[in-house]
Amino acid sequence: MTQQLKLGIPKGSLESSTLSLFKQAGWNISPRSRNYFPSIDDREINCALVRSQEMAPYVANGTLDLGLTGHDWILEREVENEVEEICELVYSKSSDQPCRWVLVVPKDSPIQSIEDLQGKKISTELVSFTRRYLAQRGIEAEVEFSWGATEAKVVEGLVDAVVEITETGSTIRAHGLRIVCDILHTETRLIANRQAMQDPFKRRKIEQIATLLQSALRARKKVALKMNVPAGNLEQVVALLPSLHAPTVNHLFDKEWLAVETVVDSGQVRDLIPSLQAAGAEGILEYELRKMV
Amino acid sequence: MTQQLKLGIPKGSLESSTLSLFKQAGWNISPRSRNYFPSIDDREINCALVRSQEMAPYVANGTLDLGLTGHDWILEREVENEVEEICELVYSKSSDQPCRWVLVVPKDSPIQSIEDLQGKKISTELVSFTRRYLAQRGIEAEVEFSWGATEAKVVEGLVDAVVEITETGSTIRAHGLRIVCDILHTETRLIANRQAMQDPFKRRKIEQIATLLQSALRARKKVALKMNVPAGNLEQVVALLPSLHAPTVNHLFDKEWLAVETVVDSGQVRDLIPSLQAAGAEGILEYELRKMV
Amino acid sequence: MTQQLKLGIPKGSLESSTLSLFKQAGWNISPRSRNYFPSIDDREINCALVRSQEMAPYVANGTLDLGLTGHDWILEREVENEVEEICELVYSKSSDQPCRWVLVVPKDSPIQSIEDLQGKKISTELVSFTRRYLAQRGIEAEVEFSWGATEAKVVEGLVDAVVEITETGSTIRAHGLRIVCDILHTETRLIANRQAMQDPFKRRKIEQIATLLQSALRARKKVALKMNVPAGNLEQVVALLPSLHAPTVNHLFDKEWLAVETVVDSGQVRDLIPSLQAAGAEGILEYELRKMV
Amino acid sequence: MTQQLKLGIPKGSLESSTLSLFKQAGWNISPRSRNYFPSIDDREINCALVRSQEMAPYVANGTLDLGLTGHDWILEREVENEVEEICELVYSKSSDQPCRWVLVVPKDSPIQSIEDLQGKKISTELVSFTRRYLAQRGIEAEVEFSWGATEAKVVEGLVDAVVEITETGSTIRAHGLRIVCDILHTETRLIANRQAMQDPFKRRKIEQIATLLQSALRARKKVALKMNVPAGNLEQVVALLPSLHAPTVNHLFDKEWLAVETVVDSGQVRDLIPSLQAAGAEGILEYELRKMV
Amino acid sequence: MTQQLKLGIPKGSLESSTLSLFKQAGWNISPRSRNYFPSIDDREINCALVRSQEMAPYVANGTLDLGLTGHDWILEREVENEVEEICELVYSKSSDQPCRWVLVVPKDSPIQSIEDLQGKKISTELVSFTRRYLAQRGIEAEVEFSWGATEAKVVEGLVDAVVEITETGSTIRAHGLRIVCDILHTETRLIANRQAMQDPFKRRKIEQIATLLQSALRARKKVALKMNVPAGNLEQVVALLPSLHAPTVNHLFDKEWLAVETVVDSGQVRDLIPSLQAAGAEGILEYELRKMV
Amino acid sequence: MTQQLKLGIPKGSLESSTLSLFKQAGWNISPRSRNYFPSIDDREINCALVRSQEMAPYVANGTLDLGLTGHDWILEREVENEVEEICELVYSKSSDQPCRWVLVVPKDSPIQSIEDLQGKKISTELVSFTRRYLAQRGIEAEVEFSWGATEAKVVEGLVDAVVEITETGSTIRAHGLRIVCDILHTETRLIANRQAMQDPFKRRKIEQIATLLQSALRARKKVALKMNVPAGNLEQVVALLPSLHAPTVNHLFDKEWLAVETVVDSGQVRDLIPSLQAAGAEGILEYELRKMV
Repeated sequence: MTQQLKLGIPKGSLESSTLSLFKQAGWNISPRSRNYFPSIDDREINCALVRSQEMAPYVANGTLDLGLTGHDWILEREVENEVEEICELVYSKSSDQPCRWVLVVPKDSPIQSIEDLQGKKISTELVSFTRRYLAQRGIEAEVEFSWGATEAKVVEGLVDAVVEITETGSTIRAHGLRIVCDILHTETRLIANRQAMQDPFKRRKIEQIATLLQSALRARKKVALKMNVPAGNLEQVVALLPSLHAPTVNHLFDKEWLAVETVVDSGQVRDLIPSLQAAGAEGILEYELRKMV
Repeated sequence: MTQQLKLGIPKGSLESSTLSLFKQAGWNISPRSRNYFPSIDDREINCALVRSQEMAPYVANGTLDLGLTGHDWILEREVENEVEEICELVYSKSSDQPCRWVLVVPKDSPIQSIEDLQGKKISTELVSFTRRYLAQRGIEAEVEFSWGATEAKVVEGLVDAVVEITETGSTIRAHGLRIVCDILHTETRLIANRQAMQDPFKRRKIEQIATLLQSALRARKKVALKMNVPAGNLEQVVALLPSLHAPTVNHLFDKEWLAVETVVDSGQVRDLIPSLQAAGAEGILEYELRKMV
Repeated sequence: MTQQLKLGIPKGSLESSTLSLFKQAGWNISPRSRNYFPSIDDREINCALVRSQEMAPYVANGTLDLGLTGHDWILEREVENEVEEICELVYSKSSDQPCRWVLVVPKDSPIQSIEDLQGKKISTELVSFTRRYLAQRGIEAEVEFSWGATEAKVVEGLVDAVVEITETGSTIRAHGLRIVCDILHTETRLIANRQAMQDPFKRRKIEQIATLLQSALRARKKVALKMNVPAGNLEQVVALLPSLHAPTVNHLFDKEWLAVETVVDSGQVRDLIPSLQAAGAEGILEYELRKMV
Repeated sequence: MTQQLKLGIPKGSLESSTLSLFKQAGWNISPRSRNYFPSIDDREINCALVRSQEMAPYVANGTLDLGLTGHDWILEREVENEVEEICELVYSKSSDQPCRWVLVVPKDSPIQSIEDLQGKKISTELVSFTRRYLAQRGIEAEVEFSWGATEAKVVEGLVDAVVEITETGSTIRAHGLRIVCDILHTETRLIANRQAMQDPFKRRKIEQIATLLQSALRARKKVALKMNVPAGNLEQVVALLPSLHAPTVNHLFDKEWLAVETVVDSGQVRDLIPSLQAAGAEGILEYELRKMV
Repeated sequence: MTQQLKLGIPKGSLESSTLSLFKQAGWNISPRSRNYFPSIDDREINCALVRSQEMAPYVANGTLDLGLTGHDWILEREVENEVEEICELVYSKSSDQPCRWVLVVPKDSPIQSIEDLQGKKISTELVSFTRRYLAQRGIEAEVEFSWGATEAKVVEGLVDAVVEITETGSTIRAHGLRIVCDILHTETRLIANRQAMQDPFKRRKIEQIATLLQSALRARKKVALKMNVPAGNLEQVVALLPSLHAPTVNHLFDKEWLAVETVVDSGQVRDLIPSLQAAGAEGILEYELRKMV
Repeated sequence: MTQQLKLGIPKGSLESSTLSLFKQAGWNISPRSRNYFPSIDDREINCALVRSQEMAPYVANGTLDLGLTGHDWILEREVENEVEEICELVYSKSSDQPCRWVLVVPKDSPIQSIEDLQGKKISTELVSFTRRYLAQRGIEAEVEFSWGATEAKVVEGLVDAVVEITETGSTIRAHGLRIVCDILHTETRLIANRQAMQDPFKRRKIEQIATLLQSALRARKKVALKMNVPAGNLEQVVALLPSLHAPTVNHLFDKEWLAVETVVDSGQVRDLIPSLQAAGAEGILEYELRKMV
């Protein structure tokens, strides 16, 4: 029988963007209705859907070999020393800002810094981490677990402060609340079980997955550019291109012209195109990439 | 300034049925968007929306004077001796069966009774109650908190059993799982802060609310029946009517006939009508009730 | 063990309005997810959800004792002589017009009457009835079964005409089609198995259901009116009231006034109220009814 | 041919609550898809769906005989002297507060009162009324028409102030804006064409509609109460009841008891019930009303 | 006037995936609301939307020249010898498993093989094919037509077995049913009228459509790979590439390196990339394809 | 501080297609909830969401430097001489037909041409343009502003004609109305403030945006084709390719073959592929483009 890697896919808000990422990387994972083991078109992998909050302990104790979850939940579950972090994977956010857990109080609260929490009552879903964070700073405060809609508690005056996750802070401000400071920045991590990393089959499979997921994410930030350049302008055009890859050079049917092809950051294109035109490039084409290793 | 009773309304799945019940009882509560203090058309009451899981501690410590929450969450938060239970209020269920927390295992699990949990791993949202329940029976087991979709964990084999809430058990069976036994039956309770019950204003207000909520629920199970009866058949018809209320008797314009009016269980009507017809009643009318004190 | 009546509830478009009607009549029927046997709060009844098209044969052959279905499907399945029609039940329509199967052609078709179908091709879901209907009139035509969206076929020119169900004809006209004539008017019927009607228990149960469903439908078209009348105007007011029920007459606390109560068609109220006011009635109140036997 | 009253029903946000009100009043109005003339079950009425903003001019010029629209649009279209206001009809609001047009500015704007608008730029959908309002106060300002999403303009700094409609002001505050003052309070009005009021048929029909719509709205704020009272406590119980209607008094089958029935404000019931119980009333029942003339 | 090919597009569940496939192949087909003739940007084609069940007879009798439908409906309508099957087109499935019609019975039914159907009652939408299938095996059974929700009938015990379509069988198992065996595997087919294939214009058009649809489907399973290779490693890298296409080789600006480009199965990429890296390839890029002829 | 260009993005129906176009062009614009200033990943640009109807005046008076809006609203607001039209941008339509404002009347209206409007009443959202249009033709008619759902007015007979926008006319015909003639064809335009065009920074930025938006739109109508050609067939294959770009020619690993690459109209591909195959091309691949300058 084939040896298999046990892979945990985060259930819920990250689920569909994770499946899209795996598809781009080369694996089709199909959820099955009323079933927590999606099918995958790779006999060497066995998938399970697991909530982000619970992924890290399952990887730590070997129930899973590999999983994707937030850095926040790795710390909250206190297993950061028991799993191996393979790489960070930034995907599925709606803004350019990092996801961060912030300390939130009513706009007119006297609390102005983390130190002002001394003796106060705080509500959060990230109880364990918040307690450690305050203890390290010598602050004594009551931290209680909150089942969702946490910001409501501080609006209602039921607690003094809450620790909540946000990207842009706009929902927090819309509730008439104020962010005192950031407590933790978090991104998705690919984490592996330490013993699995000792098994040659599993290690190779984990590295394959990491390489291909990263190549898919890298491709999202790049585009290929092709252009036609008069033979005499080649040096001038090539000088404008980023050094990332030596460009490919090729002949047109009309031998006076060359075709130049390279890969650039998608964010650079808008400034590069006018320069390339000025340097004599014509027929500039931009292509999307699906992977870039 | 008017004295006010602080009333907690459960947020989430019970919210709209609770607002309907208060409306029938005589109070209009209007949620305000992005605000956890709904308005109420009674100057003597101040409302807050609070999650069921967190209601009981807030009533226990006096943040709220009165609140509605499940018996399960009163026990889970271990405040059953610190709040006063005013009455049970059965509303908002989709079936006739009680809501109950059950012990669930895979269909082919060797676990056949609660005793078989010895040394096992259990996942549940009701951690504290489950631990007490097992300890009272001398069973040692690991009980861990679960963030929703709990039954998935036992499907995935990540734990040996879960304790989950259900009415009919159909979702559980649809996942290919088996119910071992019931752990706790639960209904909504109206609970009051002990000190509030010592304050005459608050006590009177709490009793008013309890009376009217109960009269609204009672009315949902009753209907008024009216019928015309020939004077000579009165005794025979009255004998069929439940003794709950002495019927009202009245004259028709045609003096040979009497109008008889009474209140009966809505479930009895379908059997009562043929008997009443046989006893000579005609023109039988059924009315809904809005309150019955 | 309790004897049980096997009752068929129509699945699909009639389902929710049928459940509402039974609720008003006094039975709570609760669909169970992924299950075709809804629960009912009467131990003497056993429910099954069955498609309208298939109800009549199941009642005819005794698989069911009682069922609700359209007159059209009773005729289409050719069992009109094998089941007993208990009563007609008119509910769940969006307009005042009857549901009817009509012959539909393109606006500019030469077909002007049923006779013009000679030698033509017709598509319909009501194949068997349409064939009988044409045969009885000596018309030879090809009638083929259609899987839904029937009007598309005549739009596409794939057939010469279609026989389709409609209330107002507006969808048909919106497709640029023309109604030639009506083929069949249809309402929901309560039908019973002939042998079940010979069984005393089943016959009694069927009659109970028929009586209560009809009393619920009757109540939807009636309201109760109450009014205060000076003793001297009683005859004048009573003369205005429909003879349906001799009104109830009662004394007010102020003995000069009488309270008069009766039931009238809800559609009459708007014209009756000005007349009653003119005749001296005051404090006129209108109530809804839930049943009227 | 029957004479007909041309009735305008407001299209859009008021549409469904208006149809519900007419249904309670005794008329079934059924919208027809892709058609602006809904059907109505009264041959003496001809309905049309018309936008609120355009109702008043159509009633003024006789295109319609009768219509429902807001007081704001009657004033905006400057036809308040050309139509007859039959009555105010308060329905279809989500709060107890009146609908009102308010002057809105950014939170930190120097504008503190209406006078500060001198020389400023204002955007509103209520252009004509706003211009008249400012002119009457001697304020010169530029008022321009806005196509929806008006509050965006003051957020964006494109204008100095906007005049916008609101009930609770919460959307305005959520955009970080401030209400300077109210400009106009508005409710729905039933308005008639002046000439139609001279026609006996139309006048009678208009009065019938007004009476029944008002009786339906009145019934929404009332309930009927019934209770059993020992004969000796009658005076005491009656003294508690509002004088609105002399209560109906009736005998129970048990002659020692009387049945008392009356109508009260639904908002009073919650306070009345404890008093009635204290005065000896038992078996108190509450009923909804459908109309109260 | 231009000669035109009459093309049938399947209506319903296959509709949107068929339009996407045609778009990728090079034709924009735009449905028009309330119209069964979508527009297409090719004057040589005339489109009609037709239900899958009815496509094959229309192609057989020349109403349509070309159409897409399932192999199951070609057999059911018994026209497999009257149409020309141009090619199979596999698209629009949610899993890797074939669509198949299966024989389904209750979990505890005694039916274990197709032979056990002797004398039984079967319900299916595929009546004609099922009858032929049983007759060929000498099995006599009653096969009746079912209007959708077929699996309900066997749940309800109304029939002994049903023949139903499924991909993964999960809905069937969720109803507590059991699959006895497969009856028919089916994929979408492109079918043409036999006479249309004799007409040179139509034959050319049909072949154009078939070629381009197939090239679009082929492209969905392939990707283009580009990579930079040191001149000395070229043979080693090329040896790893599938022989499908001789790779394109090109010079980089830095003449020591070559650019190699080829097309591979998208499923192979995840295993190929590590080998290519090991063989000295760098800067590996993956591109999507839109067509591959 | 960085100099910034103030860019207006049309709010509403064009919003999401405009954001997609900018994304393809190289700018990520992220709407922020409850905020009319979306973020953009270019420090040199400042975005605002503005309604199409109000864009042109804001560009004319310098509130914005650059904006996208319809030609119709530029004319309606009468600022066509006060803004600079940079280019036309055709995107976001559901059909190939132009958006056009048309004169609409009831099917049986006597109005057959624009001249027949003399003395008539017309309703439209495009009041100012319609008045100018009629005045230029010497037609006197009453033109009134309409708040949406304009076609209802002519259905209701409240006006004689309406001027409404449409692509295919199908909604108009579905209301039983007739299009008399076109009044104005309109596409989206990129318009700039005249003074901004004098500022070198702003002019450069505007030209960059125009170039990249146009290159994105151009790429939507083109595809890249690659194919393998035996060296001897090169001239024959190249002769078939459109002259737009001299094709790139390259060697395969197998030196007898050449790789040819070019860009063609996506609409031509379906006819080009058979010719290319006939001319000896093999392994033809089609790629999408993201930009084409």
